[in-house]
Amino acid sequence: MSTTTRPAQALQLTHLNQNVINAQYAVRGELAVKAEEYRQTLLNPNGNPNLPFNQVISANIGNPQQLGQKPITFFRQVLSILEYSDILKTEYASKIYPPDVIERAKQLLKEIGSVGAYSHSQGVLSIRKSIARFIEGTHSLVWLHDPLTRPVLWAILTSPERDGYPANPNHLFCTVGASAGVSTILTTLCASPTTGVLIPVPQYPLYTATLSLLNATPVPYYLNEQDSWSTDISHLREETQRAKANGIDVKCIVVINPGNPTGASLKEKDIRAVIDLAKEENLVVMADEVYQTNVFAPNKFISFKKVLSQTIEQNPGQGYDHVPLVSLHSTSKGMVGECGHRGGYFELVNFPPDILAQIYKLVSISLCPPVIGQALVELMVNPPKPGSPSYPLYTEEYNSIFKTLQSRALALYEAFQKMEGVSCASPQGSMYLFPTITLPKKLVERAEKEGKKPDEWYCLRLLDATGVCVVPGSGFGQKQGEWHFRTTFLAGGEDWLGRIVRFHNELIDEFR
Amino acid sequence: MSTTTRPAQALQLTHLNQNVINAQYAVRGELAVKAEEYRQTLLNPNGNPNLPFNQVISANIGNPQQLGQKPITFFRQVLSILEYSDILKTEYASKIYPPDVIERAKQLLKEIGSVGAYSHSQGVLSIRKSIARFIEGTHSLVWLHDPLTRPVLWAILTSPERDGYPANPNHLFCTVGASAGVSTILTTLCASPTTGVLIPVPQYPLYTATLSLLNATPVPYYLNEQDSWSTDISHLREETQRAKANGIDVKCIVVINPGNPTGASLKEKDIRAVIDLAKEENLVVMADEVYQTNVFAPNKFISFKKVLSQTIEQNPGQGYDHVPLVSLHSTSKGMVGECGHRGGYFELVNFPPDILAQIYKLVSISLCPPVIGQALVELMVNPPKPGSPSYPLYTEEYNSIFKTLQSRALALYEAFQKMEGVSCASPQGSMYLFPTITLPKKLVERAEKEGKKPDEWYCLRLLDATGVCVVPGSGFGQKQGEWHFRTTFLAGGEDWLGRIVRFHNELIDEFR
Repeated sequence: MSTTTRPAQALQLTHLNQNVINAQYAVRGELAVKAEEYRQTLLNPNGNPNLPFNQVISANIGNPQQLGQKPITFFRQVLSILEYSDILKTEYASKIYPPDVIERAKQLLKEIGSVGAYSHSQGVLSIRKSIARFIEGTHSLVWLHDPLTRPVLWAILTSPERDGYPANPNHLFCTVGASAGVSTILTTLCASPTTGVLIPVPQYPLYTATLSLLNATPVPYYLNEQDSWSTDISHLREETQRAKANGIDVKCIVVINPGNPTGASLKEKDIRAVIDLAKEENLVVMADEVYQTNVFAPNKFISFKKVLSQTIEQNPGQGYDHVPLVSLHSTSKGMVGECGHRGGYFELVNFPPDILAQIYKLVSISLCPPVIGQALVELMVNPPKPGSPSYPLYTEEYNSIFKTLQSRALALYEAFQKMEGVSCASPQGSMYLFPTITLPKKLVERAEKEGKKPDEWYCLRLLDATGVCVVPGSGFGQKQGEWHFRTTFLAGGEDWLGRIVRFHNELIDEFR
Repeated sequence: MSTTTRPAQALQLTHLNQNVINAQYAVRGELAVKAEEYRQTLLNPNGNPNLPFNQVISANIGNPQQLGQKPITFFRQVLSILEYSDILKTEYASKIYPPDVIERAKQLLKEIGSVGAYSHSQGVLSIRKSIARFIEGTHSLVWLHDPLTRPVLWAILTSPERDGYPANPNHLFCTVGASAGVSTILTTLCASPTTGVLIPVPQYPLYTATLSLLNATPVPYYLNEQDSWSTDISHLREETQRAKANGIDVKCIVVINPGNPTGASLKEKDIRAVIDLAKEENLVVMADEVYQTNVFAPNKFISFKKVLSQTIEQNPGQGYDHVPLVSLHSTSKGMVGECGHRGGYFELVNFPPDILAQIYKLVSISLCPPVIGQALVELMVNPPKPGSPSYPLYTEEYNSIFKTLQSRALALYEAFQKMEGVSCASPQGSMYLFPTITLPKKLVERAEKEGKKPDEWYCLRLLDATGVCVVPGSGFGQKQGEWHFRTTFLAGGEDWLGRIVRFHNELIDEFR
């Protein structure tokens, strides 16, 4: 055996895990890499950038603080004390921090111990209790049983905060962002290549990427663009039957609500229909609800947990209490926007104890999620209350972020109105718009000649011409022959909007 | 179809991913759950614990700060500013923090931006540059090429810090602790159930658990307990051949150096022998080097990267520059002990660009590791230098932790001398001792009658009697008919040592 053939044998693409090779994740693909190169070029003080823009706008990923969104002060003040608790021994702490910050930090330090220690693999128990109170909306519930059994105490609730139904801290799992939760659940469910998971199209590509890694089968269902990207239950039912007829064991339905990339909030009747389908077809419902606070009026967010709980209550003995639900949330989105802290959690509803035990074992292999991220989850679900010293600033910051996001969404939406052949549902929520683009035939041919998908080619041209990085619709899925792109509306300023309008209209002229 | 059969169909163990069901992870298994229950019992102010101990000692997991180890002040001071940078605008910052803390925090804030933003999926570039400087030992190297190509600049090094050989920041990946890095690499390499990975026995069970999840084959090789748990290369070679003869495609060898659970440091000649084997057999070498600073004299840590680099240098054209190496490190161990921050990194050496691109894609699906954890990695690899204001305290804290760990290791080792039929290699490093226990025949029979492995039964009895939680040797692997347990030496005080000695000798008497 010659030495020169060895490296090829040890590390050749064809010899690796083909599931990895097959996985696609457009949000951080070629475009994102190229955008990063442009950014480095512009940063280099000695270089001559020779680029037609002087700023790169990363509109490819919902990363608010990268685009200048300020963190919420209360959160960061508490976290800074958790990192350096000796500051409380100085005379300055009370001059820097409001009393409720100090109080909360002390409480968390007592409950957590050091944020440098591994926690329970599901997350710190007191933090999971806090999440449970947020979900259920009472601050008086105490759970007294062991981690993997069903609740022994159901309290009467008096002050509904989100759902008005009990949540069990032992069925809550803190995670490294919501992505890790998705991976945990799909890893548990996907038994073989014929395991099917219903995935919305368009979807956030985490889902198809994770299914690729697990060598399981995505069963796509199309959202209804004509009806503001709503869920069409009869189409869903058809796709489920079609997959089953093809030998696919459909086990789970993923719903992203509010939608990514669409921003759409599901109506209560649609949620109910999905739950009915899950009951009929023995599906686990995976509700990705990370954008639950990014909802613009008159839309509103209704959680799957709430609707499922109501349905159980209103239809006793009908088996709804055996519809398994996974509900995911995160500190990365909403007005929190703390992507870099990788905080998140999921709640399991109607999961039997033996399955909970398996999921616990699986997460325990990774030891625990980052403890500072867990603390941030606690702060998100238990923010300053009216009357507390930090409440006015918290409210001001929170509302200001909300209003800014909404006005930026509108400004972007209006820019699309000035772009020929671009149509877009009015902004509903999340952090994205997902316009349809009508591409001239000549442009489509040119792209295909260059070996690119037409929307991908369009987005590359957009980046080269304007420094604006968006993600082609093909990265999320779209109907055959339709083209879209996803862009965040997080970036400020009018400048980049002008750049994309001008680019688009000139491009269409060029290929008309 | 009746409604009552539905939940069983949707969520029954037999329908789940059997790789998850098959995975074992003893470090957080039954014993850890029971220990946590005892801890909660003792915490409950209204309960009557009625336990023969008043303190639970979690010696099952290397979690220093849970057992009272103080974090290093410099690290936490910088992190607290990164969390709440507005503190720098107050007049108090300079009264609380030494100037080098403020300077470092400002530099990191400039490089990172907000710790609440997603970073590059491999980690912040400037942090990776800092890691590279730590590995190579110079502060003057600049890399000028794009992320996925081989280095274009090899600098002449003047001040070796660790290895004295260049490291490429673009071949470094920050991780969520070292565990996530192990998972990334094994996921990439494991192509089918016949993919084999050489795993030391005893081993840290992350490796077998991850291989179970990937449905790949662990190929065990025994460490030589009689020679302080050294690596026996002829045995390794035999096991590799045996596996190949059985149709296993052996692709990787895992070496834990310093050893977990053994604490042993590999000698340079043994490292060289492993590299030779890897070259002959086209193996990727995965060097888990997270305990690299937990080494007691006269042992010393020598990195695989250093030995591989020397071997390449001394044997040009012999193909050593095509031996792929993964070297893992972490902020969880060493004197840092910041497990909860989930910081870590791995370096890839001799990995071709197309494989690097696949690994980048894989990690990008998880977006990025926690940014505060990345910052902690930077602080670990670039601590205060002599002459800086924080240096004296840093050095004092670091040395004090080192000495405390060593004296606790010795105290535990001495306790084992008082336990009949217990023998243990003298403490060499890491955070563990892994004694052999000779169990009386009657005890073995009793355990088997109760459906437990004898060492597991022993550890359960130990926990019930003393509140000390250790992990049975069967969780790490051991030779047939031998029994061990792994215990950390992190806990302070003499009390628990007395408890385990008394427990053990009474138990042996009972079953003699």
